[in-house]
Amino acid sequence: MSENFLYLTRPGIDTHQEPVVYMRNDCHVCRAEGFSAQSRVRVCTGERSIIATLNIVTGDFLSHQKAALSEAAWRLLNPQEGDKAYFKHAPAVDSMGYVRGKLYGKTLSQAAASDIIRDINHGLFSDIQLAAYVTACAGNRLSTEETISITRAMVESGQRFHWGEDMVLDKHCVGGLPGNRTTPIVVAIVAANGLLMPKTSSRAITSPAGTADTMETLTEVTLSFERMRKVVREQGGCLAWGGSVSLSPTDDIIIRVERALDLDSEGQMVASVISKKVAAGSTHVLIDIPVGPTAKVRSAEVARHLSDALCKTGAALGLNVKTIISDGTQPVGRGIGPVLEARDVLAVLNNAADAPDDLRQRALTLAAALLEMGGKAAPREGLQLAQQTLQSGAALRKFEAICHAQGGLKPLHPAKHQHVIRAPKSGIVALFNNRVLARLASLAGAPNAPAAGLDLHVRLGEKVEAGQPLMTIHAEASGELEYALDFYNTHPEVLRIEEEVV
Amino acid sequence: MSENFLYLTRPGIDTHQEPVVYMRNDCHVCRAEGFSAQSRVRVCTGERSIIATLNIVTGDFLSHQKAALSEAAWRLLNPQEGDKAYFKHAPAVDSMGYVRGKLYGKTLSQAAASDIIRDINHGLFSDIQLAAYVTACAGNRLSTEETISITRAMVESGQRFHWGEDMVLDKHCVGGLPGNRTTPIVVAIVAANGLLMPKTSSRAITSPAGTADTMETLTEVTLSFERMRKVVREQGGCLAWGGSVSLSPTDDIIIRVERALDLDSEGQMVASVISKKVAAGSTHVLIDIPVGPTAKVRSAEVARHLSDALCKTGAALGLNVKTIISDGTQPVGRGIGPVLEARDVLAVLNNAADAPDDLRQRALTLAAALLEMGGKAAPREGLQLAQQTLQSGAALRKFEAICHAQGGLKPLHPAKHQHVIRAPKSGIVALFNNRVLARLASLAGAPNAPAAGLDLHVRLGEKVEAGQPLMTIHAEASGELEYALDFYNTHPEVLRIEEEVV
Repeated sequence: MSENFLYLTRPGIDTHQEPVVYMRNDCHVCRAEGFSAQSRVRVCTGERSIIATLNIVTGDFLSHQKAALSEAAWRLLNPQEGDKAYFKHAPAVDSMGYVRGKLYGKTLSQAAASDIIRDINHGLFSDIQLAAYVTACAGNRLSTEETISITRAMVESGQRFHWGEDMVLDKHCVGGLPGNRTTPIVVAIVAANGLLMPKTSSRAITSPAGTADTMETLTEVTLSFERMRKVVREQGGCLAWGGSVSLSPTDDIIIRVERALDLDSEGQMVASVISKKVAAGSTHVLIDIPVGPTAKVRSAEVARHLSDALCKTGAALGLNVKTIISDGTQPVGRGIGPVLEARDVLAVLNNAADAPDDLRQRALTLAAALLEMGGKAAPREGLQLAQQTLQSGAALRKFEAICHAQGGLKPLHPAKHQHVIRAPKSGIVALFNNRVLARLASLAGAPNAPAAGLDLHVRLGEKVEAGQPLMTIHAEASGELEYALDFYNTHPEVLRIEEEVV
Repeated sequence: MSENFLYLTRPGIDTHQEPVVYMRNDCHVCRAEGFSAQSRVRVCTGERSIIATLNIVTGDFLSHQKAALSEAAWRLLNPQEGDKAYFKHAPAVDSMGYVRGKLYGKTLSQAAASDIIRDINHGLFSDIQLAAYVTACAGNRLSTEETISITRAMVESGQRFHWGEDMVLDKHCVGGLPGNRTTPIVVAIVAANGLLMPKTSSRAITSPAGTADTMETLTEVTLSFERMRKVVREQGGCLAWGGSVSLSPTDDIIIRVERALDLDSEGQMVASVISKKVAAGSTHVLIDIPVGPTAKVRSAEVARHLSDALCKTGAALGLNVKTIISDGTQPVGRGIGPVLEARDVLAVLNNAADAPDDLRQRALTLAAALLEMGGKAAPREGLQLAQQTLQSGAALRKFEAICHAQGGLKPLHPAKHQHVIRAPKSGIVALFNNRVLARLASLAGAPNAPAAGLDLHVRLGEKVEAGQPLMTIHAEASGELEYALDFYNTHPEVLRIEEEVV
């Protein structure tokens, strides 16, 4: 069967993370191997091989001599245009047996978890197999022991940083709260006190901004690992994008499927958070859990359970974890979107009179806990030290020094188009829907258009008069502004105003 | 946003059943709508709209003015090349909320089951959402009540036949046993006794032959509904392919995902079988459940549980169901593959001296039960009537009459290439692995090459001498013969010979 090859070509089709191979149904390889649409196929060049899902081509877009690879498949196999490749049926994925076992009530052992995560990491799970795994873990079906096994397997599947220090601080927020951009302030305060906090953050996936998106409006965030290490050595902290280093790569694959299914698995979320922190070389991590009806965590009970799982899993992996359960009923600060959030962060660091007090207080609370964890302040004295660091300007100087070390501090540019939304009636601001607000900011263009987003002018419980500005929509293109307005007009639940009860 | 259209084109990409739309990432629609790879997109022409998964194209294979549809998407939307289409984000699939609820322990109500099945039938579930649904139902998580609700929903989702008779007989085998081709013989015996048995069968999906594949070697099986009705009116029975009529269409979608995941859900299997029989207009159904370590059902306990669920679900849908638990430890008859199985069927119908007795006995047992269910024989007297019908030649005449009514009786053509596999040592035939045998026959080319497959020369418990023929591999192409032989040489567990214990 030595003639069983085709020449590889790259039509530039982005199937997201699932590797796909395209072949003509009447090419000699398809016929000889008995492939059909959706077959799982091993594609092999001299050096490397991958597993891909087959899409059969019947039209003229592909020659009989060629097989096309999707972008994900091309990146994994990394061939040259025109390289020869050989094809055969992919073997069954043995670790799917553990997923089936879990469905029938068996416990996932460490060996099972390791095999599953290794196979996911090697691209052996198709999208529907990933969906089955995620579903089997959903509905609180993972015990703490199983979560620990998965976490350990995820750490083993990727790179791991070693900072050569006994105390490496980190923070994390389980998310779901627009504008909650405390990280730059917290890193500045903590690093200004001589503690090590080499922070890597993510970009937005479905939200209007991630910390990396916000920091990118102010400085360079795509740092090589060597550059990042230099910044941290000089400044004690950094504010970099974590995506250029491969920490817990399996997590990205799993999260994509969870998002598409809108399925949260507590165990999988815990494994995701803890594995990334361990891989980042952290030793002490503070985790913010905002609770509110439209936040990711919706009740105090769920938050306590999650907190317990995070602490126990962290401990099993040698990580000191502390959690803070915080208010998640409304956005934090005024801006939602990269530039608008960066503006709020700078206002707090500059001790500006009009800086949003809620963002300031939350950042101080988190920084205080980290200063205590790091031994720079006695228990209950962290807040005072954090306040001093902020008020004295030491935090601002540290922030600016980090930005300069990362490549310079850039000025912020406001959006071209702005539209003020006014109160349709007088009353009390009774409810913010965080999810709908986030969607509105995304439709206005955030984070791809960095200056786009929302600027909120009112807070929960505030009294407003009919016609008073509630928020301003910022957009960089008139089409996006229109699109966001259309959405606002059909989604009045973004912000509820109730009659004042006298 | 009236300019938000692209022209549709059909590059001929077969993504199996998932509708996919391809767009350039820099086309105005992608940019205006903020689509990204894997977005679920509503594609709308003037008359119709579908939901498709987006694959982003970055290369030159697609123009900025065009959107390409996969074959599944093209069939669903049914546009003309060059038609204008409009695009927007697909709404969330509300019925996925019921799937999530099921994962968290809620019971699926009739309303929930109806919404899920309707949305699956309308193509609103992506492949990973289907995988989540299948996984949520696996592991015996469906109660009989839930199974009944799903069955009812599946019946409502497709066409339904009405034969205008009080007694419409049918049979089904839950499968997994190669060569178990009793249906043509059973239909001939039952119809020869004046009962109505309008049998539709499936083609093979993963097995080496379905009843439709076998019958197609002898006569025409792709009948229009009108033609089928005419055959049944004249002959009292037919042996047609069920795929050209849309009975329980949702089932095909679900089964594809179950197969890809290798996940069996008893509840889903029961819903599949019963919904198709109800939709086919049957009133009395006999279900054969072969049990064996390498059959689909592996223990008597599982078979009894399945039998109970089939009978209760049938009763809830107004269907009289009877089950027979049969021996599933080895293939039935000698041939595996369309032509070789048809040869065995004809031998039994012709009362040939060398006709395989196991096939004959199984067909008689099933026919006897149906004659009793249909009131043509008193309890326990069906077998005698079935034997008489077969021995007198009445069954053969009825079979030939049905074939002529369907379009004529064709001669069988043997395969070009044959290779005899001989016993490597003397001993007793101790085990057949049905699954590996089926795979071997498939690799030899069955069912696409109708004459391909296996001809078995020994039975379980038989004493063989070293060098004695065990089976003959039949293939229509030398490459396929080689491929099957390679597989046989690496999979000796196909047939185990053990030393005779003296």
